[in-house]
Amino acid sequence: MTERTPVYFDCDTGIDDTMALLYLLTRPGHELVGVGSVSGNIDAEQAARNTLDLLALAGRPDVPVAVGEHDFLTHPYDGGPAHIHGENGIGDVILESRGEPVNQDAAELLIDLSHRYGGRLEVIAIGPLTNLAVALRRDPSLASRVARVTIMGGAALAPGNLTSAAEANIGNDPEAAAAVFDAAWPVTMVGLDVTMHHRLTEDQRQVLAAADGVLQQTVAEILDTYFGFYDAILGVRECTLHDPLAVAVATGGALPSLAPVVKVEVETGSGPARGATVADLRGMYRGHPPVEGARHTVVLAVDHRFGPDLLHALLGLQPAS
Amino acid sequence: MTERTPVYFDCDTGIDDTMALLYLLTRPGHELVGVGSVSGNIDAEQAARNTLDLLALAGRPDVPVAVGEHDFLTHPYDGGPAHIHGENGIGDVILESRGEPVNQDAAELLIDLSHRYGGRLEVIAIGPLTNLAVALRRDPSLASRVARVTIMGGAALAPGNLTSAAEANIGNDPEAAAAVFDAAWPVTMVGLDVTMHHRLTEDQRQVLAAADGVLQQTVAEILDTYFGFYDAILGVRECTLHDPLAVAVATGGALPSLAPVVKVEVETGSGPARGATVADLRGMYRGHPPVEGARHTVVLAVDHRFGPDLLHALLGLQPAS
Repeated sequence: MTERTPVYFDCDTGIDDTMALLYLLTRPGHELVGVGSVSGNIDAEQAARNTLDLLALAGRPDVPVAVGEHDFLTHPYDGGPAHIHGENGIGDVILESRGEPVNQDAAELLIDLSHRYGGRLEVIAIGPLTNLAVALRRDPSLASRVARVTIMGGAALAPGNLTSAAEANIGNDPEAAAAVFDAAWPVTMVGLDVTMHHRLTEDQRQVLAAADGVLQQTVAEILDTYFGFYDAILGVRECTLHDPLAVAVATGGALPSLAPVVKVEVETGSGPARGATVADLRGMYRGHPPVEGARHTVVLAVDHRFGPDLLHALLGLQPAS
Repeated sequence: MTERTPVYFDCDTGIDDTMALLYLLTRPGHELVGVGSVSGNIDAEQAARNTLDLLALAGRPDVPVAVGEHDFLTHPYDGGPAHIHGENGIGDVILESRGEPVNQDAAELLIDLSHRYGGRLEVIAIGPLTNLAVALRRDPSLASRVARVTIMGGAALAPGNLTSAAEANIGNDPEAAAAVFDAAWPVTMVGLDVTMHHRLTEDQRQVLAAADGVLQQTVAEILDTYFGFYDAILGVRECTLHDPLAVAVATGGALPSLAPVVKVEVETGSGPARGATVADLRGMYRGHPPVEGARHTVVLAVDHRFGPDLLHALLGLQPAS
C-alpha cells in the first residue's frame, strides 16, 4: 500500500484529459492507482484506448484502466464533438495501441479501490459523472470510503458551454451529476468560473513541440486540433485548461484564492437550465460566511497563472524507455 | 399628447419602489402616464394605496393608478416579506390616504395606454411580471405597440436572492416572466448582476432625513426598515438600489457600461433553478459579439456610481403644495 495519496481518475480522454492525465503522473505525493473511462469527449471504449496508449507512452503501463459507461443514465451517448477533440478524441493523432483494459468496469474498479484504500482514496473526475453515479447506485456506502471527489465540471456564476446554463460534463448527464453532488462525500467543483481563465498559449505549445521528448512532441501535436477550436471561442490561438486545472486543484498544484463551501444542486428538469449547477453563493456580498453542513467547495478563482506550471511539468515528463 | 416619452410603471410598492417612483417623477424627457400595482413586496391593493399616497405627497395625484393582479399565474400570493419592507410595504410609515385607483385593472390600463401612445410607450416593471403577462394574454398584439420593456429582475451571472438561482421578481412568478421575455418586444433586464453594486449609504439617508421637505423626510423614514434588513445581508448599513437603478437605466439616468444583447430564457420547471434567468452569455470571452435576432439586453455593469445621483434627484423633488 502506498504512502502517497491514492487517486482514482475518471476521464473521457479527450485532449485536455490528455494533459490532465500526464500532469497527474507528475504530481508529488500522489499515486494514480486506477483509471475509469466514460463517454463524453469521445466514447468510453476509445477513451480507455487513448488512456492506455498515453500511459504506455509515459512509461506507466502498470496503471489499471477500466472501460466505463458508454451511455448516460437517462439517454444514450450520441457521439463526441469531433470538431473539438478530433475523430478519435486526441486530435486524430495515431498512437501505438498498447495494453488492455482490466476485466471490470469503471464503477467496479472504483468500488474495489475504495475498499483497498478505505477512507484515503481521492477521486478526480474530469468527464461526465456517469461512472461515479453507477458506483454509488451499486454501493451507496462508497461515499463513506472516499476522502474527496474533485470534478472538472459545472459553472456557478459563469455561463455554460454545452448550453447557456450547462457546462458539458454536467449537461451531458445531469442526473449522474445530481447523484454525485447529493452523495455524502465532499465534492470540490472546478468549473468554468475558473477554468476559462487559465490558458496554454500557442507559444507554450511550440515549446512542447520543440522539446526532445516524443511524449512532449505528441502532446503538442494532439493540442493542435484543440487550439483550432478555441481560436474561434477565445479570439486568440490558445486553449483553456479545464481538466488539468482540476487535477492541479486536487493535488495541490494550484491553490484556490476563492473557494466558498456552499450547497450545490444540479438542475435535472427539461427546461433551459437543465444541467445547471445551482450554487448557493448568496453569501458573496459579505465575504462568504461559513455555511453549516455544506460540503461542496466551489472554486471561483485561482490567482496564480497555472499555464506556465503545467508546461513546466509536462516538459519534465520522461517518456517510456 | 405629450412630446415626452410616455412611461407605464408597474410596481409592488415597496421601499425601493418608493425611491424608484419618486426618482421617475424627476426624469427629464419622460412622463409617467400610468401606474399598475402588483403583489410582491406587498399585496397589489396595498401597493396601489402606497403608490397613490406617494404620488399625492409628490404633487402628482393626476397620475392614474390601477390595481393589478393579486395572485401569480400559477399560484396564490402568500404575503410579502415584512422584515424587508414592513407590514405595509413602506416600512410601517403611515401616509395620509389620498386618491383612489382607476376603475380598470393594471393590464387593461397598460393595453389602453399602448393604444393611446402606439409604439412610443415605454414600460418599466419593477415587480413580478404578472400584470404584463396577463396583458399579453388578453392582447398578444400589445408587444408590437410598446417601444421597450425595462425590468428590475433576474440574475444572469449573479446568484439569486429569493433562492440560490432566482431573483425575487422573477422567482415569484416565473411563468409570467417567461411570457414577458418570450414576447416580441425588446426587454432590458436590470438584474442583481448590477443592482447589488449600487447603494445608498446611511450618510446619504441622513441627508434626506435632515432636508427641509416633508417628502424627503418621509423617504428617509421609510428607508429605515430597509437599511435594517440590508445591514445583515451586506454587513454595512446601506441599501441596494434595485428598482431605482432600473428606472435610471430606462430613462437615461444611468448608462450601462456593459450590456450585451442576447437570448434570455426563464426556467419554469420545479427544480432548483426555477425562476432562473438563463442568459446566453457564452460570447463573453470574445467581447460579446452581436447575436442575430436577440432582443434581450442584459445590463451587467453601470460603472458610474448611481447612489449620489439618486440622492440629488430626490433632494430636488418638490412636495405637494
